[in-house]
Order: sequence, then C-alpha cells, then structure tokens
Amino acid sequence: MKIKHYSGIEPKHSEKATQSGITGRLVIGKGDGADNFCMRIFELSKNSCSPRHSHEWEHEIFIHSGKGEILSEGKWISVTSGYIIFIPGNQEHQIKNTTDQPLIFVCLIPAGVPEI
Amino acid sequence: MKIKHYSGIEPKHSEKATQSGITGRLVIGKGDGADNFCMRIFELSKNSCSPRHSHEWEHEIFIHSGKGEILSEGKWISVTSGYIIFIPGNQEHQIKNTTDQPLIFVCLIPAGVPEI
Repeated sequence: MKIKHYSGIEPKHSEKATQSGITGRLVIGKGDGADNFCMRIFELSKNSCSPRHSHEWEHEIFIHSGKGEILSEGKWISVTSGYIIFIPGNQEHQIKNTTDQPLIFVCLIPAGVPEI
Repeated sequence: MKIKHYSGIEPKHSEKATQSGITGRLVIGKGDGADNFCMRIFELSKNSCSPRHSHEWEHEIFIHSGKGEILSEGKWISVTSGYIIFIPGNQEHQIKNTTDQPLIFVCLIPAGVPEI
C-alpha cells in the first residue's frame, strides 16, 4: 500500500509547464503497480492556466481547493473545492485559476497514455 | 462534459452503510460514458469506519478533508487532507474517521466491478 501526502512526491513536469505556473505530480502510476489508471495532482499558481488542448483519452477530475474556471464547449464554467469534472475523450478543455490562491486538483487518466 | 459539485449528486449506498455513518456517491461512472474507471466520493461521519475487507481490484484514493486512519498490513496509519493512497488488489483495508468532523475522500476503481 502506498500512503503519502501528495506534497512529498516530487513534481514531474516540463520546464514550459513550470514557467506557466503549473506544478504536476504523478502520485499513483505504473511504477506503483497501478495497471488500469493513473492519478496526478496539479497546482495552478495565481492566474495561471493549463494549455487548451484535446486528446483521445478521458479525464476524471476532482477540485481539491481554490477557485477557477473550465472551458467546456466554448463556455467558461466556474468550479471550486468539491467539484467533479468528467471530460470525455477528444473534447477540447482548459482550466484556469481565477484567484490569488493556488487551484489544486486531482486528474486521472487511463493506463496506456503518457502518465504526465 | 460533466461539471458538478459532488454534494449535488444523490448518494447511492446500502441501508447498512447509512446506518454505519457512511455516505457514498458514484460521481463519475459508466452512465457518464466513463468506460475505463469510476470515481466515487465517500463521507464518513464522526468516528465511523468502512468495512474491513479485500477484493481483486485496486483503489486509488485521495483524502479531501478530515482526519482518519487506514489499516495497512495490520497497522493503522494516520491520513489527512492531501494524502493519496494506493491499495493494490487483494490487500485487506479499512478506513476510519478519528475525529468529530466528516472524513471525505475520493476513491477510484477500475471498470468492470460494482461501481458502488
């Protein structure tokens, strides 16, 4: 069993992501024996946002803390702590932090795609 | 895209679970088009606990709020907001709330097993 506070797991993300104010952590993945799906945790700093993109695989997201907006079918929808988001495959999406506090969310993807 | 606060999703759980102080919600599942894995959110009320059990499938858990302990290989390990837990298949587990405040956690399972 793996039991850890997520902040104790080293971030794994590109230099570009860091410059954009995104901290990403792979917290449960293949290396832990998780063969079916994978958990990542992202922190978006003040007013930062994830890239606008789409891909074949789905996301299952839980907003842990902070406030932001998610782009869904051309509209920005407000989300805050306790929101769940299901993004089907091939649907364009982007998440932005709309406050001075970090926006922290859990984002899961199926196995077989890049883990982070 | 499904975007909802989890508390607005109707709990789905057995009468036995309710009596035990457990509120369980299936927040993302097959009915939403999630074919690979499934997200549930559980609230354990004051001093309540999940059943001690094991099964073939894994759990990926994120502790959203509250404080508790998880049984891992015969020992109780403290967890609080921000902890992640990976429980491999066939490993005995149980989670208990050790405070007066609700213990709220996200728990994911692979597709193909009972969703909640």
